[in-house]
Amino acid sequence: MHVDPALEAIGLTWLRTGQSALSGPLLDLAERLDRSFLQIAEAFQAKEHRFPPMIEAAELHRLDYFRSFPQLATFPVSLDDAEENLRRFVEGDVLRPDGGLALTASATIDAVLTPAACYPIYIHAQATNSDRARYFTVRATCYRREDHFEPLVRQRAFTMREIVCIGTADEVRQFLAQTRAWVARWQEAIGLPIAWLTATDPFFMPSRSSKHLMQRLLPTKVEMTYEGRVAIGSVNLHQDHFGATFVIERDGRPAQSGCVAFGIERWIHAITKHFGKDPDRWPRLEEALAASRDG
Amino acid sequence: MHVDPALEAIGLTWLRTGQSALSGPLLDLAERLDRSFLQIAEAFQAKEHRFPPMIEAAELHRLDYFRSFPQLATFPVSLDDAEENLRRFVEGDVLRPDGGLALTASATIDAVLTPAACYPIYIHAQATNSDRARYFTVRATCYRREDHFEPLVRQRAFTMREIVCIGTADEVRQFLAQTRAWVARWQEAIGLPIAWLTATDPFFMPSRSSKHLMQRLLPTKVEMTYEGRVAIGSVNLHQDHFGATFVIERDGRPAQSGCVAFGIERWIHAITKHFGKDPDRWPRLEEALAASRDG
Repeated sequence: MHVDPALEAIGLTWLRTGQSALSGPLLDLAERLDRSFLQIAEAFQAKEHRFPPMIEAAELHRLDYFRSFPQLATFPVSLDDAEENLRRFVEGDVLRPDGGLALTASATIDAVLTPAACYPIYIHAQATNSDRARYFTVRATCYRREDHFEPLVRQRAFTMREIVCIGTADEVRQFLAQTRAWVARWQEAIGLPIAWLTATDPFFMPSRSSKHLMQRLLPTKVEMTYEGRVAIGSVNLHQDHFGATFVIERDGRPAQSGCVAFGIERWIHAITKHFGKDPDRWPRLEEALAASRDG
Repeated sequence: MHVDPALEAIGLTWLRTGQSALSGPLLDLAERLDRSFLQIAEAFQAKEHRFPPMIEAAELHRLDYFRSFPQLATFPVSLDDAEENLRRFVEGDVLRPDGGLALTASATIDAVLTPAACYPIYIHAQATNSDRARYFTVRATCYRREDHFEPLVRQRAFTMREIVCIGTADEVRQFLAQTRAWVARWQEAIGLPIAWLTATDPFFMPSRSSKHLMQRLLPTKVEMTYEGRVAIGSVNLHQDHFGATFVIERDGRPAQSGCVAFGIERWIHAITKHFGKDPDRWPRLEEALAASRDG
């Protein structure tokens, strides 16, 4: 995999495992981007949560996630801790010549590494009712196994900031529309060209998925797309998908929800591709976002 | 597992997977603690890196990690993506009645979820030489499978901030001594009682490990221990363990290294146990640390 030396010079290290390490100017840029996204969260008085990396498998299974995206999931697996099993492992090859671990029997696999930042919010909010709209924000490392990886653009582990609204259909639509308009003004202000394109999720066997059919009939995902290719963020309307599954209510009825998601490494890709590798030429992200708040 | 409702009221959610979610005052406390530890890093002009969660298995194997701690490791595993294999998975039970996933064949397992924050630093610094001491800092989610879990104290995933020195024996010893003295003054200033206790790592089959024997003969790990039970941090001298393994040199000879590690959730445990659950009664951590810098 070719890595641009100009990106390496400002803090990118691309690893054979399909992941990036950041330091220096690129780490600063990641932080500035996240503080920008947090401004939007703060405008909605979104409550911040820091969720741990593993989601209980039984919870995500309620969304039929594993049947919808079996190819993407990454599971945290440990060895069965019976002494005889551990001993067989340490007395064996441990690492095979192909770089793969020669694991012996594994313990029960009861969790999945979160594939998106916002799932833990709906799980956390389950079996609750509210008489007003609720806003949350979360940043998380997300895990998606793909058939190829590309620095900053397609990674086995990457960082997402999300802002979520749970409320009535109107409240959610208004949140998504306001946020989309604000981000659009911001992108225009900083001079980053993006197109807003409808998209569907990468279902396994899409022709057999009723959810994929629904996404095609009624577009619910719009992506902020850089160079027609890289989705650096998205605006998503879930209708009552999470509200019904997790019994999250708004005035006693299944709540609707929606989220705005930002892929931090992909924003870094877009900023450095469009404005170059010299940090002095990068836009003043936070100031421009604040100035774009009102249309 | 009993969870203190007073902790839940200030932002702790304990999950069945052996992990915590944080929000509100406890999330703020986590951030204030980390900013405090970063002050120490900045005093040494440590370079910050953000490493991704997975370490290439072949790299950690060079330290004989898997044979030393097979019981602790957590591996990121995905399904073999052959369509027939994925189809068998989605057409099967997916989730068994015991809460475990019924995975079909897995893809090559080539990585491990990092068990400590600092390993990626030595891997990153491999095959380099320097004519001066090098300082690094990193914060990471760390993964350790244990036979029981306890909120904030023993978690399947937890957060560590580490500061690392790579240099001559004298440079490393001086770094560790200065840092330990500063932290000791800070803890006295804020009134948090801790004991500095020598410790060994939890080797599998310790009697067969030469490294365990070495740790017993020549104490290299000193833990900041709260209530004689909870290690909230540690000061570690690695000698040339990493320098020799990864060919990290100081003036052409294998470098020594040492690190100071802080367990963020365990600090939250100690602060909330000692000072109570009212955030107004927590010490002014950052100010006290700055004031304790010089002995």
